[in-house]
Amino acid sequence: MAEVAIVMGSQSDWPTMQKAALILKELGVEFHAQVVSAHRTPNLLTEFAESAADKGFKVIIGGAGGAAHLPGMIAAHTHLPVLGVPVRSSQLSGLDSLLSIVQMPKGVAVGTLAIGEAGAANAGLLAAQIIGTTNPDVAQKIIEFRTKQTETVLANSTLELPEV
Amino acid sequence: MAEVAIVMGSQSDWPTMQKAALILKELGVEFHAQVVSAHRTPNLLTEFAESAADKGFKVIIGGAGGAAHLPGMIAAHTHLPVLGVPVRSSQLSGLDSLLSIVQMPKGVAVGTLAIGEAGAANAGLLAAQIIGTTNPDVAQKIIEFRTKQTETVLANSTLELPEV
Amino acid sequence: MAEVAIVMGSQSDWPTMQKAALILKELGVEFHAQVVSAHRTPNLLTEFAESAADKGFKVIIGGAGGAAHLPGMIAAHTHLPVLGVPVRSSQLSGLDSLLSIVQMPKGVAVGTLAIGEAGAANAGLLAAQIIGTTNPDVAQKIIEFRTKQTETVLANSTLELPEV
Amino acid sequence: MAEVAIVMGSQSDWPTMQKAALILKELGVEFHAQVVSAHRTPNLLTEFAESAADKGFKVIIGGAGGAAHLPGMIAAHTHLPVLGVPVRSSQLSGLDSLLSIVQMPKGVAVGTLAIGEAGAANAGLLAAQIIGTTNPDVAQKIIEFRTKQTETVLANSTLELPEV
Amino acid sequence: MAEVAIVMGSQSDWPTMQKAALILKELGVEFHAQVVSAHRTPNLLTEFAESAADKGFKVIIGGAGGAAHLPGMIAAHTHLPVLGVPVRSSQLSGLDSLLSIVQMPKGVAVGTLAIGEAGAANAGLLAAQIIGTTNPDVAQKIIEFRTKQTETVLANSTLELPEV
Amino acid sequence: MAEVAIVMGSQSDWPTMQKAALILKELGVEFHAQVVSAHRTPNLLTEFAESAADKGFKVIIGGAGGAAHLPGMIAAHTHLPVLGVPVRSSQLSGLDSLLSIVQMPKGVAVGTLAIGEAGAANAGLLAAQIIGTTNPDVAQKIIEFRTKQTETVLANSTLELPEV
Amino acid sequence: MAEVAIVMGSQSDWPTMQKAALILKELGVEFHAQVVSAHRTPNLLTEFAESAADKGFKVIIGGAGGAAHLPGMIAAHTHLPVLGVPVRSSQLSGLDSLLSIVQMPKGVAVGTLAIGEAGAANAGLLAAQIIGTTNPDVAQKIIEFRTKQTETVLANSTLELPEV
Amino acid sequence: MAEVAIVMGSQSDWPTMQKAALILKELGVEFHAQVVSAHRTPNLLTEFAESAADKGFKVIIGGAGGAAHLPGMIAAHTHLPVLGVPVRSSQLSGLDSLLSIVQMPKGVAVGTLAIGEAGAANAGLLAAQIIGTTNPDVAQKIIEFRTKQTETVLANSTLELPEV
Repeated sequence: MAEVAIVMGSQSDWPTMQKAALILKELGVEFHAQVVSAHRTPNLLTEFAESAADKGFKVIIGGAGGAAHLPGMIAAHTHLPVLGVPVRSSQLSGLDSLLSIVQMPKGVAVGTLAIGEAGAANAGLLAAQIIGTTNPDVAQKIIEFRTKQTETVLANSTLELPEV
Repeated sequence: MAEVAIVMGSQSDWPTMQKAALILKELGVEFHAQVVSAHRTPNLLTEFAESAADKGFKVIIGGAGGAAHLPGMIAAHTHLPVLGVPVRSSQLSGLDSLLSIVQMPKGVAVGTLAIGEAGAANAGLLAAQIIGTTNPDVAQKIIEFRTKQTETVLANSTLELPEV
Repeated sequence: MAEVAIVMGSQSDWPTMQKAALILKELGVEFHAQVVSAHRTPNLLTEFAESAADKGFKVIIGGAGGAAHLPGMIAAHTHLPVLGVPVRSSQLSGLDSLLSIVQMPKGVAVGTLAIGEAGAANAGLLAAQIIGTTNPDVAQKIIEFRTKQTETVLANSTLELPEV
Repeated sequence: MAEVAIVMGSQSDWPTMQKAALILKELGVEFHAQVVSAHRTPNLLTEFAESAADKGFKVIIGGAGGAAHLPGMIAAHTHLPVLGVPVRSSQLSGLDSLLSIVQMPKGVAVGTLAIGEAGAANAGLLAAQIIGTTNPDVAQKIIEFRTKQTETVLANSTLELPEV
Repeated sequence: MAEVAIVMGSQSDWPTMQKAALILKELGVEFHAQVVSAHRTPNLLTEFAESAADKGFKVIIGGAGGAAHLPGMIAAHTHLPVLGVPVRSSQLSGLDSLLSIVQMPKGVAVGTLAIGEAGAANAGLLAAQIIGTTNPDVAQKIIEFRTKQTETVLANSTLELPEV
Repeated sequence: MAEVAIVMGSQSDWPTMQKAALILKELGVEFHAQVVSAHRTPNLLTEFAESAADKGFKVIIGGAGGAAHLPGMIAAHTHLPVLGVPVRSSQLSGLDSLLSIVQMPKGVAVGTLAIGEAGAANAGLLAAQIIGTTNPDVAQKIIEFRTKQTETVLANSTLELPEV
Repeated sequence: MAEVAIVMGSQSDWPTMQKAALILKELGVEFHAQVVSAHRTPNLLTEFAESAADKGFKVIIGGAGGAAHLPGMIAAHTHLPVLGVPVRSSQLSGLDSLLSIVQMPKGVAVGTLAIGEAGAANAGLLAAQIIGTTNPDVAQKIIEFRTKQTETVLANSTLELPEV
Repeated sequence: MAEVAIVMGSQSDWPTMQKAALILKELGVEFHAQVVSAHRTPNLLTEFAESAADKGFKVIIGGAGGAAHLPGMIAAHTHLPVLGVPVRSSQLSGLDSLLSIVQMPKGVAVGTLAIGEAGAANAGLLAAQIIGTTNPDVAQKIIEFRTKQTETVLANSTLELPEV
């Protein structure tokens, strides 16, 4: 059963948001990915968010760009933790997406990650870390992922000056 | 019967948003003002926006600050024209409010005014201008308002240099 | 007879601004599109704006980039509602265009849309929504447009992970 | 036993960060608050972060301003979920704090909240929501907190126009 | 006969713009100061700018804030050199004023000074420098002004450390 | 004899700055163009600026990018009017160039134009306008340039919708 | 003999820049503080910078605000290491100062510190660290300063929740 | 023996950071370049920074992008002077990198250079300038480098207008 839901405003956000999915898969956390648009399918959003806890989701990841209302509106309709990914916008490089997601008022929270693919991957990682607080298998996989990551940095560290 | 609805995320937005109300009153347009929070009363927002046309509203003005989702989410639930007022936020001077309101995706529009009180007043004015496209009385009052405004600028134009 | 005028500072704004025209066409609202430059044809701008109401226009859409004065100066010369589209500028991504259009002083309003093509399309949509407040045919077409848009989002929601 | 640790770079961050503590207290989640500076006590930071899981913490909240390295460096030393609060800086209003915290590279995540007190409060709320994914008592208290919050908005909605 | 015209959008800009007047007075250049609003008295603006050369003005200084269209619109109606002063706006510290004035399109130029009082003073100075290109008396006074300024800096250079 | 000097920090600024030269040529104003770097040839800069008036220059145009000190430092060494062109920088799109040039302190002025080629062209135009304040031939050519520009806008105003 | 020179554009920068002086005093590094304005005393700047090495200075700290050209122009005239402090500007919070100082072109370097007093203090500290690379006494004092700083953080870490 | 260490968060920063290496090589200063990630190899960072002085390094250059914590965290673990290079980030052009590096709190300093390759080259230059304060050979090479640089600017100053 999927513990993490990944929702995004449009199919065009998937190349970014699939980085969240890939990390969750790598860490052995089941997920469900779906297009839900705050502005174009608002009632689906309400329905999705209000039923998310009953469906067994523990964490919801929402990605959106521009006037990015998706993560905040999902958070308004559920008591589950919601993570937000500012998708890079074509005009303002995602600064609009970032501010629209992170500057939530007191009382409804969205844990926001970096703009774009790095943020999407980290949303998957953070969701797994949340699952890992009570699931030792996932926690162990995160520790191994981090160790491997450290080793990869160390292994790829040859720095050669070009001949001038 | 009120033709314009003024909604805002919190009572603390009223000192800003009442500037919209005052202009509408001056121009003889009936309005209804109400607190509706996108994040804290999301179902009230849906209900309000979906019934707005049936209640006879012709234009909706929404004001909010920070991650300001109110105007966009109202626009998502109605085919009425929606105007947005970015309320000055305490941290980023309303730049976050502005970008959260104006950068709507194709297909759901919010006509956005300036940050703060000037924007709120102009939201009232623009709502009246919209009513005025088919209501000659309102159109006439706007013309008079603008004429008076021009006269006021001209009358207050004494510029004296201080003695040094 | 055209009810919406679309004006822009230069022919080079047309690839952006035609998105407004295409939406109006789709929604059955007649429009007139014209190049008028605030800086290079200022008297034409005055003449255009002052006669717009008499010509039967109900809404004016103005698009411009950089120090974008077109929408605000049209608004200064008419009591019709004016919508502004910040055209993406080559240097500052349209942030200059956005601030030049949206930050109007109290007493002369421009309803501002998003930077670039999404904003132009939404200016067309919002103009139609304004017409739709008293024209049931247009209102009905907007409702159908929005329904179709919702269906399109739902129909395009297959999300496949790439094989790794 | 404390399940949430609240750490901050300096005692001067406490007026902001205590908003996280107050929400956790209200929601019945035990917490531990401590000053740890990334730059002035870096070894304490390492020690704190590396032992946090063994001490039974499930979530860590880090608050810092300016070149805010605290939350990201804690995340680098633990597999626990880390939430970051950009404390308002005296010069750039917290935009520097926000970007320093949220723009983490792929592989080490910080769930970032809004700048300042609202963000601190929401960090407490989100930490509780994370605890609540497996603790029904906390989940129930969050639901009640949210219900009360909705009621408070509805109860404080009298909007009176000043006499002019 | 006044050689420099100082125009501004509103009487409230005078505390800033009088710094231009004071420098011109100090440098012996006659000026005329007047309120002309691009948005509230647009026809007066056209009339003012189109007759400015005939009235004997050689340089026009325009000051405005927010969506500051005044200097650019004056430049559109005259071949005289126009200098622009971004008046500090209440919301965005004058960044909106600056971009609205400086980012003019090719073919209509505004020489833009710094935001606020320093910019206003320098607009007066630059106008005098322009007059000074063909008026040796003014040129001489500028040289003396600059020499005195250098002396003032050198005379006020005692730097004492406070007792700790 | 050249009346306008165009100086720039590096040969790589010439593609931008030649737009100033082309306009001056078109308007019949003689100019001299030269590479002078504030940072790499500072003594040449001092020498150039201090002798500029004696060489017969009436206006100096300086173009530079990044931490653009050239126009301001020339202004510090001459009483001639100085115009500044923010050359587009590779990292921050010229916002750094713009602020480095325009935000001069009280007492040393730089009339700043738009970022990039439009600004360079307008620096040439504004320099000609300054020459034109006392040179009727140049004034006449500017009037003709502006008339032709207006006609060009009007002649290029066919707007065709693409077939869909 | 003074090893560090602290220069600033105006006496009004001293409240900020004295923080550099106080740290140097604390670390036992002799310094000389002086007002030198890039724009108002440019020849003094050249003379100061070109003779600095001969006078025995090893590091120069320059502080300035707005279009802050002081540190970069000093660096252009000396081969000594130059550190820059962006003094908070009244309009743009020092963002203009920061970009004007830090964005130097390849070949002339300024090591830039934070905006305002923290940056000034750190300029003093970094200058001492540079002296300390070959002066063991200064190095030892820096180590003690840092140890004391760590102890101060640890000693001031009582965090008390207010009674609600 | 290497006197300057160049460290960077990832191999992908090397194309930028090698500009520092090339300048040091040109100026005859031995350097050591290494990948150390603040977030992915935090313990290596601590170990590297704490042993840097003992290994004989006199200056450390750190380059990183996004939430760039590397230079500041190295500075937290050593009393050696640390220079920081904001590597251009893919989303926000390096503004996030710049603010994350430069806005250090009082007591731990990073001398920050420009964003990207120019900044990396200047970090190498400034490191050499620091070495040069007590090494006359290096000082002499810097003087020659600067002289050659001046000559190169002067030699490449042909500016030809294109035929139109």
